[in-house]
Amino acid sequence: MNARIEADAAFTDWMQHVQAGMEGTLDAYLPAVTEIPARLHQAMRYTALDGGKRVRPLLVYAAGELFEAPEELLGRAAAAVEMIHVYSLVHDDMPCMDDDALRRGKPTVHVRYDEPTALLVGDALQAQAFAVLSGNVEEQYAARQLKMLHLLAQAAGSTGMCGGQAIDLASVGMTLSLAELEQMHRLKTGALLRAAILLGACSGKHLTVVEQAALEAYSCPISLAFQVVDDILDATADSATLGKTAGKDAADNKPTYVSILGLSESQALAEKLRNDAHKALEQFGNKARRLHELADLIVQRKA
Amino acid sequence: MNARIEADAAFTDWMQHVQAGMEGTLDAYLPAVTEIPARLHQAMRYTALDGGKRVRPLLVYAAGELFEAPEELLGRAAAAVEMIHVYSLVHDDMPCMDDDALRRGKPTVHVRYDEPTALLVGDALQAQAFAVLSGNVEEQYAARQLKMLHLLAQAAGSTGMCGGQAIDLASVGMTLSLAELEQMHRLKTGALLRAAILLGACSGKHLTVVEQAALEAYSCPISLAFQVVDDILDATADSATLGKTAGKDAADNKPTYVSILGLSESQALAEKLRNDAHKALEQFGNKARRLHELADLIVQRKA
Repeated sequence: MNARIEADAAFTDWMQHVQAGMEGTLDAYLPAVTEIPARLHQAMRYTALDGGKRVRPLLVYAAGELFEAPEELLGRAAAAVEMIHVYSLVHDDMPCMDDDALRRGKPTVHVRYDEPTALLVGDALQAQAFAVLSGNVEEQYAARQLKMLHLLAQAAGSTGMCGGQAIDLASVGMTLSLAELEQMHRLKTGALLRAAILLGACSGKHLTVVEQAALEAYSCPISLAFQVVDDILDATADSATLGKTAGKDAADNKPTYVSILGLSESQALAEKLRNDAHKALEQFGNKARRLHELADLIVQRKA
Repeated sequence: MNARIEADAAFTDWMQHVQAGMEGTLDAYLPAVTEIPARLHQAMRYTALDGGKRVRPLLVYAAGELFEAPEELLGRAAAAVEMIHVYSLVHDDMPCMDDDALRRGKPTVHVRYDEPTALLVGDALQAQAFAVLSGNVEEQYAARQLKMLHLLAQAAGSTGMCGGQAIDLASVGMTLSLAELEQMHRLKTGALLRAAILLGACSGKHLTVVEQAALEAYSCPISLAFQVVDDILDATADSATLGKTAGKDAADNKPTYVSILGLSESQALAEKLRNDAHKALEQFGNKARRLHELADLIVQRKA
């Protein structure tokens, strides 16, 4: 039992270390407010800094630990994935999409600034993600970076995150089957979570086919669990805890795991997915403990 | 005189060859409509294919000729720059920005489809640009591609195109000095035109410092001339010729070269910039003839 408490404490320390480090990394990789146009840079910083659970950066670092990834490349990968995630939130919150006023406990960008600024903040953050990930590290890592850029661009695009968002929009008010709901989330949320894991891994030494397959087998249930828990929280938590508008999916008549499966079935599914994720990591042994613990975090989180 | 007519005909042939080739290249690098989500892919193709003067791809190919660039890398660079350009038009036309109904003679994406689709089409085209440019060519070109990706991402972002757009939005109804107007356009239009030239050049063999400086000295006046002529056309041509709404800048109370300098001074400036661009190319001799002719095209175009 003491060992368990120590392990939990070590994980919390590690998590807080990564989260705090991410603030500095994002700060360093975002244009300064002294650069023109100042207001756009202020708005980019307003939305990207000081908020968020940084789940994707945590996955990048946890996967990177497995493959002896160099620190600078990991930092660039984590910042790039987080910038893509943040830009997608800014655009999703806009009036023509989900029309949301609250995000991470703060007014959304189009509310705090204005709509054109929100559009440009998202566009500029996406470009910045690719600028950061293509930044010069060391010539020996060029092929690695190129592979990571390709992974991230595909995860962000029309057969990844943007595609999932398009399916989500088209599904409002429709009755989806569980398979259709899964496909939507595999693109909308899953593609970028998977990219975070693979980018962390690709930052390091060459992956074998078996290792890559194990990471895919981990990322699949993790991605779904993330969304199932999101739906559970949207149905059960309040806005103050979530830092965004709760009960939004039901109000918007969006299909969710809770609306299709019910609450207790959804909770059982999240547990099953966590076990699947843990199993996929077995071949890595204790080296994969951070990924193992992140599966716990994703299922047990309260916001 | 006959030699001049032959040269013009050769340039027209070359231009049409590149433009026709770009349709095929873009077609190949855009997701098929058979891929899910089909409607998003339809909308991406609707806006990216069969339209536009392809000025940026022409610059990519013309600069590539100077440095013996491999065909596949040039095609990827040209497609990527054009996708960034097209996405920026889709977002600029949206109701919260310029609210424009006509583009390249067709209804804009948010009019033909809807606003959320226009937002996602732009987002997905930006991601696709980076996916195409990071696609695996040959391991020997990895460092080149990485440099090109970095150039493109910086040109597209908050200190490039998006930044220029932000300054443009902030300047509506304001009196700008000529220097302020120039700075806005150097970012808004100039950054991506410059990137097109440099990407074409970087696709090929290593640039010397002198060569890079000459290309910068060419891209600067070319970018400004492009915008000066845009302003002249907006003030003098009709919507049918332009394929977009004419007289929009004056109606929107936007500062332009014509509103600051007047029409004949603007025309004189365009001529001066063309001469500056031609002078910058002198050291390359006849090898730079396509870039030379593109400067003519940019100043003499009627749409």
